Amino acid sequence: MTAYDRLAAHFACMATIGEASAVLAWDASVWMPPGGAAARGDQLATLAGLSHGLLTAPEVADDLAAGDPGADSWRARNLALMRHAHARAMALPTDLVETQARANAACEKVWREARAASDFPLVAPHLADVVRLARETANALAPALGLTPYDALMDSFQRGITAAELAPIFARYEAFLQDALPAAEARQAAHPAPLPLPGAPEAAQEALCRLLSARAGLDYTHARLDRSTHPFCGGIPTDIRITTRYDEAAPAQAIRGVLHETGHALYESGLPRAWSRQPVGEAAGMGVHESQSLIVEMQACLSDAFLSWLGPEMHGAFGGDSAPYAPDNLARAWRRVGRTCIRVDADELTYPAHVILRFRLEQALIADDLQVADLPHAWNDGMQALLGTTPPTDAQGCLQDIHWYDGLFGYFPSYTLGAMAAAQLMAAARAATPGLDAALARGDLGPLVAWLRTQIHAQASHLGFNDLLRAATGTPLDPAAFEAHLRARYLQ
Amino acid sequence: MTAYDRLAAHFACMATIGEASAVLAWDASVWMPPGGAAARGDQLATLAGLSHGLLTAPEVADDLAAGDPGADSWRARNLALMRHAHARAMALPTDLVETQARANAACEKVWREARAASDFPLVAPHLADVVRLARETANALAPALGLTPYDALMDSFQRGITAAELAPIFARYEAFLQDALPAAEARQAAHPAPLPLPGAPEAAQEALCRLLSARAGLDYTHARLDRSTHPFCGGIPTDIRITTRYDEAAPAQAIRGVLHETGHALYESGLPRAWSRQPVGEAAGMGVHESQSLIVEMQACLSDAFLSWLGPEMHGAFGGDSAPYAPDNLARAWRRVGRTCIRVDADELTYPAHVILRFRLEQALIADDLQVADLPHAWNDGMQALLGTTPPTDAQGCLQDIHWYDGLFGYFPSYTLGAMAAAQLMAAARAATPGLDAALARGDLGPLVAWLRTQIHAQASHLGFNDLLRAATGTPLDPAAFEAHLRARYLQ
Repeated sequence: MTAYDRLAAHFACMATIGEASAVLAWDASVWMPPGGAAARGDQLATLAGLSHGLLTAPEVADDLAAGDPGADSWRARNLALMRHAHARAMALPTDLVETQARANAACEKVWREARAASDFPLVAPHLADVVRLARETANALAPALGLTPYDALMDSFQRGITAAELAPIFARYEAFLQDALPAAEARQAAHPAPLPLPGAPEAAQEALCRLLSARAGLDYTHARLDRSTHPFCGGIPTDIRITTRYDEAAPAQAIRGVLHETGHALYESGLPRAWSRQPVGEAAGMGVHESQSLIVEMQACLSDAFLSWLGPEMHGAFGGDSAPYAPDNLARAWRRVGRTCIRVDADELTYPAHVILRFRLEQALIADDLQVADLPHAWNDGMQALLGTTPPTDAQGCLQDIHWYDGLFGYFPSYTLGAMAAAQLMAAARAATPGLDAALARGDLGPLVAWLRTQIHAQASHLGFNDLLRAATGTPLDPAAFEAHLRARYLQ
Repeated sequence: MTAYDRLAAHFACMATIGEASAVLAWDASVWMPPGGAAARGDQLATLAGLSHGLLTAPEVADDLAAGDPGADSWRARNLALMRHAHARAMALPTDLVETQARANAACEKVWREARAASDFPLVAPHLADVVRLARETANALAPALGLTPYDALMDSFQRGITAAELAPIFARYEAFLQDALPAAEARQAAHPAPLPLPGAPEAAQEALCRLLSARAGLDYTHARLDRSTHPFCGGIPTDIRITTRYDEAAPAQAIRGVLHETGHALYESGLPRAWSRQPVGEAAGMGVHESQSLIVEMQACLSDAFLSWLGPEMHGAFGGDSAPYAPDNLARAWRRVGRTCIRVDADELTYPAHVILRFRLEQALIADDLQVADLPHAWNDGMQALLGTTPPTDAQGCLQDIHWYDGLFGYFPSYTLGAMAAAQLMAAARAATPGLDAALARGDLGPLVAWLRTQIHAQASHLGFNDLLRAATGTPLDPAAFEAHLRARYLQ
């Protein structure tokens, strides 16, 4: 057995432990009774500890040094990703990891109270600890990975793009938005308000969700659809677990949630089986993942073509008056723009502003250029500059998202990387696939998904973010396609 | 840190891995889509391999040799059980374990075909391999554990009782049955046949199942009830997962299934938290476990007192004509005796005959006193001698149970150990708890469960099978209580 083969077996073992953890995490969100939480935390921590022990075992370093992948670029990339994972694990002292886990858990707990009471000072000392430990982590990782400290954090969510590359793209979007948002609002005000969509029984919503996800290509012999408080896509490529939530008064939530998670699920299920359980066989990062959910939910299923099929389909499923399901009405109902302070309520056009704000603030926090005590003020100033609105309370401002309070820094950019990449990929798919929109008008995502299977899913982690986009579309991340998409949808 | 403390932490880690496996196994039976089976098998095998590696790590042997539990009998027993588990693991060569796993899986697969076609010769060569490997295992374990080869197999399911102790108890039962069965049949024939129990919608059955299990003491903040092909109790003490199955034409199946699994669940939930994840804190074996399910299902809930409450409760839940739910009718419907060839269809009186047959045959197979080719003949002769009936086909004879074809030898006695122990424990609980039957007549299992909590659940693995019974009832396993119970229920 060669060093490379030993490594492949070793990483497959770690990946299999990760699969077990993925199913346990899904269960914790979907079925676990509340009394099971403490033991489940121990189980996940024990599995993570075993995996960490396997990754940092002395013989792994020897095999990584000796490993020879040969001429194959996938094997070479696989070995490089193994070395990358190993460098990450070795760079972090065990006591820092443990201190950070405790500080994050303590902060997240207090954050729930602080958000409920809109009391930022209550959680500020905890957040200061969390930021300090994230900075220590970033500083420890940076030299090991050859990245800046902030990029070293972003790297754990999305490899292959840096803050320096992202900053001008976000600045350009900020400028675009200064004209586009008022123009979209004016256009919206000139049209009649949409008829509200009627409610629908949960069973009818669920049946339609299953139909839509299956039509989009989700294979239910390898997947499940359940419900959870927050929709997500979990499980593993051959056993995918998506969830949604049902509100009988507002069926859109379940339907759009399922379409979004189906996009994630198609990506996982399309990863190359030949490389399963190897680093190179994994999804290419959270930004690419988000591009796959958004290309299904926002690009394909919110297109005029698809809505012309979906409207009558919804009417058939839910009955009642047909007027609210007229494609034109659906489009107006599902494409409202506005200036909400709340990221998760934001529309397609303003969502990036929420991300840009967080991207800038978290870089300043990690660089120690912004003190935690000054965060509410900086947040509100940023919202005013980006969207012309100021959160009335910190609960609707810097306390709204769990991410930082749980120690997640460098994650937020993934949402907008995904939105921009989705538009860029959709444009390339349209150019390469003449019948794509005609198929969408029949409720058929087949041509789009077939293109994604080849260009994105089958590529797994063979390429980093920008290289993957370049291979699929001819250019690295370019916001022009997203802007063109938004202009067509909201300004014309 | 002392050697004992290191061992306690080490075994807690293995137990936590075991918890993860328990949840994954539950998911595989309840929710997993069929396409997830291959990966799930890998996950469970990987976790089992990690656990085995932890148990057989060189430093464990050193700590076991050096470990000093002090004067506390629980710590002493804990260390003894650690040594026992270690001796088991070290006695089995890895290649034997792997060969056996493959042979069992191959045999089980062919058995499904063979049973469907009632074609014993088809599976006989596979079963011969499985028996040979089980014999090798038994012979490897016996000297390490200081037990006979067959007892070494039985030991992995129930510690603290030997085949030599069991054989005369079973012989006595066989003699008892020769008179008791014809007498019970004659008495049954002298009474009117019961009115059939009406069907009931699944939702009403499920609601009643939840009510009954909660009334019996199952705490749903630490438990779930779902459905599966075969009812079982899985999960872990603080997160118990019981299942049942629903037949709208025959509600008895779901109701009695849930009562049975609730008995198992109460045992797990009553194990002492102070010893959780330690060998001494685990359930005392499959025989004791079965005693806890049967004391709830058969002793308590099939008693005249409980049926007098349950009948009206079922009528309230299901509606319709009240006559079938009259306690006397319920009793006649649920206490039919007969001479079925099929173990899982057998009544309380004849069930032990099915176990006695298997106990004798599997000892002969392991001792090489019975050849696999002669099994169908030996089976049919045994059934004729024990129950005066001969299976019309091998599918209804020696092919009916999965156990042997999956490599399980030494398991079957647990069923009857449980039935006999349940009767013995019920008699002791009644003697110690004057209001026990009056409470059952109010649908209240509280006094019984409180006694079991102290006498059995809280004792965990502190004592072996016979010592546990002696501490709770004054004598080791004594079939007299079971015979008295059967006489009272079926002969008077």
